[in-house]
Order: sequence, then structure tokens, then C-alpha cells
Amino acid sequence: MVIGGDAAGMSAASQARRRRPDDLRIVAFEKGQHVSYSACGIPYLVAGDVGTSDDLVARTPEAFRRLDIDVRLGSEVVAISLDERTVTVRAPDRTYDEPFDQLVIATGGVPARPDVPGADAAGIHGVQTLEDGIRILSFLERHHPRRAVVVGAGYIGLEMAEAMIRRGLEVALIDAADQPMRTLDPDMASLVADALRGLGVDLRLSCPLEGFDVSGGRVTGVRTAEGTLPADIVILGLGTRPNSALAADAGITVGATGGITVDRRLRTSADGVWAAGDCVEVFHLISQRPAAVALGTHANKQGRAAGINIGGGYATFPGVLGTAVSKICAYEVARTGLSTTEAATAGFATFATVTESTTRAGYYPGAVPITTKIIAERTTGRLLGAQIVGQEGAAKRIDALAVALWHGMTVEEMTGLDLSYAPPFAPVWDPVLITARKAAEKLATLKP
Amino acid sequence: MVIGGDAAGMSAASQARRRRPDDLRIVAFEKGQHVSYSACGIPYLVAGDVGTSDDLVARTPEAFRRLDIDVRLGSEVVAISLDERTVTVRAPDRTYDEPFDQLVIATGGVPARPDVPGADAAGIHGVQTLEDGIRILSFLERHHPRRAVVVGAGYIGLEMAEAMIRRGLEVALIDAADQPMRTLDPDMASLVADALRGLGVDLRLSCPLEGFDVSGGRVTGVRTAEGTLPADIVILGLGTRPNSALAADAGITVGATGGITVDRRLRTSADGVWAAGDCVEVFHLISQRPAAVALGTHANKQGRAAGINIGGGYATFPGVLGTAVSKICAYEVARTGLSTTEAATAGFATFATVTESTTRAGYYPGAVPITTKIIAERTTGRLLGAQIVGQEGAAKRIDALAVALWHGMTVEEMTGLDLSYAPPFAPVWDPVLITARKAAEKLATLKP
Repeated sequence: MVIGGDAAGMSAASQARRRRPDDLRIVAFEKGQHVSYSACGIPYLVAGDVGTSDDLVARTPEAFRRLDIDVRLGSEVVAISLDERTVTVRAPDRTYDEPFDQLVIATGGVPARPDVPGADAAGIHGVQTLEDGIRILSFLERHHPRRAVVVGAGYIGLEMAEAMIRRGLEVALIDAADQPMRTLDPDMASLVADALRGLGVDLRLSCPLEGFDVSGGRVTGVRTAEGTLPADIVILGLGTRPNSALAADAGITVGATGGITVDRRLRTSADGVWAAGDCVEVFHLISQRPAAVALGTHANKQGRAAGINIGGGYATFPGVLGTAVSKICAYEVARTGLSTTEAATAGFATFATVTESTTRAGYYPGAVPITTKIIAERTTGRLLGAQIVGQEGAAKRIDALAVALWHGMTVEEMTGLDLSYAPPFAPVWDPVLITARKAAEKLATLKP
Repeated sequence: MVIGGDAAGMSAASQARRRRPDDLRIVAFEKGQHVSYSACGIPYLVAGDVGTSDDLVARTPEAFRRLDIDVRLGSEVVAISLDERTVTVRAPDRTYDEPFDQLVIATGGVPARPDVPGADAAGIHGVQTLEDGIRILSFLERHHPRRAVVVGAGYIGLEMAEAMIRRGLEVALIDAADQPMRTLDPDMASLVADALRGLGVDLRLSCPLEGFDVSGGRVTGVRTAEGTLPADIVILGLGTRPNSALAADAGITVGATGGITVDRRLRTSADGVWAAGDCVEVFHLISQRPAAVALGTHANKQGRAAGINIGGGYATFPGVLGTAVSKICAYEVARTGLSTTEAATAGFATFATVTESTTRAGYYPGAVPITTKIIAERTTGRLLGAQIVGQEGAAKRIDALAVALWHGMTVEEMTGLDLSYAPPFAPVWDPVLITARKAAEKLATLKP
């Protein structure tokens, strides 16, 4: 039985079905009306890059039913009883108990909602579920808003700010922090801030939200420390926390990050109960500490591993590096591992190197700037994290850095890496290698 | 003292100068008229992507002279005497001996010239030095050829075929092998063959060169096993072998590949004599055998390491994976490690997995096809090689595979890698992960 019909839950269901085609009854409860969709695609749906919301759906409920997976939409699990091995389901027409042998909790994340006056007004939208995306589109079409305020300058906030700009709205983006994308170092984040401003976004940092002005039930302004910003639509991009209350209420162990505690095989503290996706706590391979990271790529991997295990196989989710990538118009932003601040929190003494280069050979058409930063351990030169801000073709280089990080390479070892080179793809020294080389040279001059 | 003024030689000179700014006399002999240029850029110069040949020059002789590096153009070293510690230099005006304490041999490669009738005719061009590129451009401008035949379907041959197509010529491309790019597996090479034909190239495989028709000293046709192809210009892309004769004549050890034998620090068998670039033999980290690989990226790394060592530092070149990338119009081709055939030659029992995916989320604009192949060891699942053929944004993924290969990852371990995901950059399962996953699933079903 699966609670939650998005990436993690439905991956688990599919894998379990694949390994046990005949002898396993699988029921999936989804409180919304859609399963197995790309939540990461919502900003592109809103921007108009994607035809319809159906294009974001990887597999429909009907397709799952053909695999003999009993998908029940509009069905919210409100309680788990470990003693009776049942879940309590609130369906549109009734509330009932359903028994299980094995249970996968894939309840996702809870979007942070600001605790300020007016937060329930019409025109204020979260961006979490496909329903949210459809609601935003419908609001745009019905009300033709002219001014948008996006609250929160993380990945989703930035992507939504871009979407609104591209739809022709005036956009203000506010954040309480003094930089966008808090997972980047301040110097790299300032490149992102410049890019946002260049795009026409009215970016206001160190500018906490204080409330909303509401008229006739609908939002008309966003009150901030810097005064009120008029708004016809507000988008909330304040991040999420693991949706673990259901598990906690059932007595299943939840960690300090708020995520459900799972082992490498995605087992919770309760026998026969698994968890996967944004609701779990993962192991961060560099900080060696638990972390809560809401990302579709982890949810898919975790769901698949849980499903294989339930199906009688053996699979693990080894942990995360914190790799992430985003695109803001012509700008690509990527990061992996620990930022300088995160590394300090984890107890590392670090040094950093930043280089400017180009994505292709300097003389090749389409060569655009790329700024690469490496954060490494001061005593050993071991890579701890990396960040990239650049234009077309820049960001996916983070993957080579992520694999190097996975293996605990030092910056000196990295200088020898055999990365690909041809003029349309890189300078003869790839920006990754240039940065590693500069870091190795810097390391040689550092005193303990 | 440095013999050869391209990437390897001038990197060595620069690094040595950097570490010993005052107490080292540095002389660099270059038989041609240019130093420190991107030979890899020549096809793009010919295609018209690059303004002038000067754009391919990273640093001029004058710039090196300002670093107190005595660059002598048109100066060919014709002999090395280890006993007297001198080289014999044939300059435009005289031949003379010059003493050395430390010597870097960076003589590059010798392009294969076909031993067939007519091979010396005008209109038949190699593509090795910047002079070659300038000669081709000048020939195109003076003679306005209509029909080009490219001999050899390796990286250079393909890039030159594209350049000629883009200049509006009719292009035939012949190769004695039954596939283009012999470093790819046949199935992946056939995608490249399709792409070439789609581009309008008359690709003729299993079609050995037999000779040239010459009229008035100029080439008019290429004789092949399939008859004569009319040609107003011929481009030779038959690869190179290490230019090690000078070293061998001096009694310096040369390996079975024809490359000068060097250790990890780029030392040859002779005291105080170093070698770097296309003239040396490298260690292949996967086959664990010597190899001769002519690539600018290796030449730069090796030259840098040799220069650091000469300058009193410590640097190594750890070996190669055989990573390479190329672009043929809209198609990107990349490979790393061993092909299936190379793996068999090296004694590995292998299996392979090929997947079709897209470079971005399927619903995101600009998502284009990518075919990814993984070759792994049958008994352990260890990655041995990978190949990618796709369109924009496909090929640079080879770097993540190259780093995984560097560390001897198994395909099963690779499925857990934390690679970056967002809809503009990848499907939620990156093609690299999809292929690793399919390979791991296949491995589980294989019998010993």
C-alpha cells in the first residue's frame, strides 16, 4: 500500500509490481487529482513553455490501473495504525479503514505558508502540486494580473519570477535573506542577483514579508519592511518541510530535520513500513549528517529502491551530495556538496577558488562566460563543494564535479582528470580543470 | 630548452619560467612559423566559424619573448646529442649546435600520408599545423573547388567534411573501415554515419584509397576500390603517429606504440630529458597498457607537468581514459574508456547497454535525442567505457562518466550518483543514470 501518488510513491508501486506481477495487491492513495507528474515542470507550464498540464503527467491513473495498481484519487490517509496494520482513508464519499502488509509513506513536503495577516486571500498561490499550477494558470487567464510579487528567492521563486516576466507581468521578488539562493555562496549568488535585475525583476533582499493587503477577499499588495508593493498576484516560494506528521502520529521515528528516519533501504523504524521522497530525512555524504532535501531526482531514486525491496530485491539509496541545477533565462546555476557556510557548520576549515572562463574555446562561436567555484578542505585539499553560474552549456558540468565529490577527490587529483575537449564544447582546459588547478596552486601556498 | 612550439612545448616553457623567473635560460625551437595555437580549431577556421588564423593563436612568439622565452621560428632540431648535451638546429640561414642542461621534446605527431601514386599533388592537404589550415583556406579562395574528397573518417576527417559542406562544396568521405570513428562501437558509429549522410556527405565505407588522379600537377580525382571520385581538393584525415624519430635516433627509449617512453613526471630514459604531447606514449588507466593518444588536452597537461618539474616543483600526468568529444553539425559524439573491441583486446569479458532518452525533460522545449551506451565488465559490473551520440547538450555528459570510470565505479554504484536535475537540463533520471540502471538490471540477469 502506498500513501502519496507522486514520484516516490508511484515509483515504488511500479517497481514492486514489476518484481511481483501476480501475488501482490497494490493500492495507492492520493489526496489530489493527479499522480506521477513533474512538479518541477510547473514554472515552465506557467511560463507557457509546456503545452498543457497533461504534458507534465508521466503516467495517468488509468495507466497505473492497467498495471493492476489500484489508484484512489481524492483519498487522503489521515491515520496509520501500526497495531492493527490499517490506514484510515478519507475519501470524497466516506471514511474507511484499509489493511496493509507493507506500507510506503510518500507524503511529500508541506509548503511553508507565511504566518502573516491576509495570507489566505485569493490571488496568493503556492507552487507545489499540479493543482497549484493549474490554479495559477487559470487565475492569470481570468484576472489578467499586471503586477506579481514572488515571496522567496530560492529555486522555485526564481523560476516563477522568470515565468511571470515572460508572461509580461511586472515582477518584484522579495526575500528576508541578503542574497537569492541561500544554497550558494554570497559571491556566486550576487551573479544570480545581477542576472535577475538584468531581466527586469525588482529584486528586494533583506526585505522580510510583513503581511498582505486584501480587498474584497483578493490580495492587492505585499507589505514588507520596505513598504507595500502593489500586487495583483502573489507567488509563494518559501520552500517546504517534510510532511511527516502522519508518520510521527503513528509512532514512527522522525529525525531532527523533520524528515522520517529511514535506512539505506528506505525502511522506517516500523516493521514493513517504508518511506520515500520529500517526507524522508536523507544522509548527506559530505557533511555526514542527516538532511532534508526536497528534489524529484531523490524521490524517484528512493521510490524505486523501496519498490525493489518490497518486491523481494535488494536496493539502496546511498545518500545525497546536495546537487542542484536551475535556469533563469539565459543563466544557468548549479551547485553540489557544501557551500562555504555549510562546510563551516559541518566543522570543515575550507578555502575556495573562483575562476572565469568560457563554455567553449574562446574563438568558437557561442562561447559564453562561466564562473566556477570550488570549495575544498584546507588541510587535505579534498573537494567539499562546487558552484557554477554561467550561460548556455555551463551548468551540467556540475555532474563531473559531483562524481569527483562522491569519491572524495582532492583538487590536486582532479587536475589530472581526463575530461572531454573539443572547441565546440570547452576550452582546452575545461573550466572544471582550470578551477581545480587554481585551487591546487592555492593549496600549495596555504599555511596550516 | 624546448623542441616544438605548440601546446606541450610552450606549456612546459611557461611553467618553468613561472617557477624560475630569473635563473633559467629558456630557448624554444619551432620548425614552423607559429607557436602555441589550437590545432583543434583548424576545421572551424576552414568552416568560417573563426575570424582569422590569429584567433587560434593562444600566445604569440612576441608574448613568449616578453616572458624571456627565446622563441626561434623556422628552426628545426635535426639531432640531439646526449653525450655532448647539445641539439643541432637547422635555421633558415645556418645550422648550429646549441647546448642544454634540461631538454623538453615536444615534437608532436607525424600525419599519416598515404603511400599511393599522386600523393604529392597540389590540392592534397593534411590538417595538422596552422600552416596547413592557412594553406587550405588560401587554396579554397584561389581555386574555388567544387568537389572535395576527405580521406579518413576519424574526428578530423568528419570535422573537415562538415567544414567543406558548410562552405558549399560537394563532399565525399571515404574510409577503408566499415564504420566512421573507429573508436566507437559499430552501433554507435552507425548513428554517426546516418548523421553524415543526412548532412549530404557521400560517405563510402569499406572503401580503401588506391591513388590520386593528377593533371598539371594538381589533384583531379581520388581512386578507390569503388572507382574514381572526382576531386578539386582532397583533405587527408588519416591520423598521426608520435613524432619520436629524433628521440629514438638519440638513443632515447621509444615504446611499442611508437611514442617516447615517459614516466608519470614526463621523464624520458635520458637524464634531464623530458617529453610531452603527441610524441609520447601514455598509460591507459583502463586497459593498463601504453597508448599513443594525440589530443590537445593531454599535451597541455603534460607540458604543464614537465614545466613544473623542470622548475623545481612536483607534478605528474597520471594517464588517460581515452575521453574524446566531437561535433558534426547538430550531432555531438563523445566517448571515454574502452570500446567493446578495445575491452576484448585488453582481456575483459564485457556486456553493454544502450538507451535512448532526451537531453532535457521530454516536455521541455529543445529536448533532443541522446543515445547512451555503457560497456561494463561481465563479472563485476565495473564500468569500462561509455559512448554518447546525440544533439545539443548531449555530449558533455561524457565527463561525469569519465570521472566514474576514473574511480572504477560499478554500474550498480553509479545508479545512486547524485547528478543534477531540472527540466531544462535533464529528464528526472539523467540519461547517464538511466543507462547505468539498465546496465545494473542486465548485470543481475547475466550468467557467469
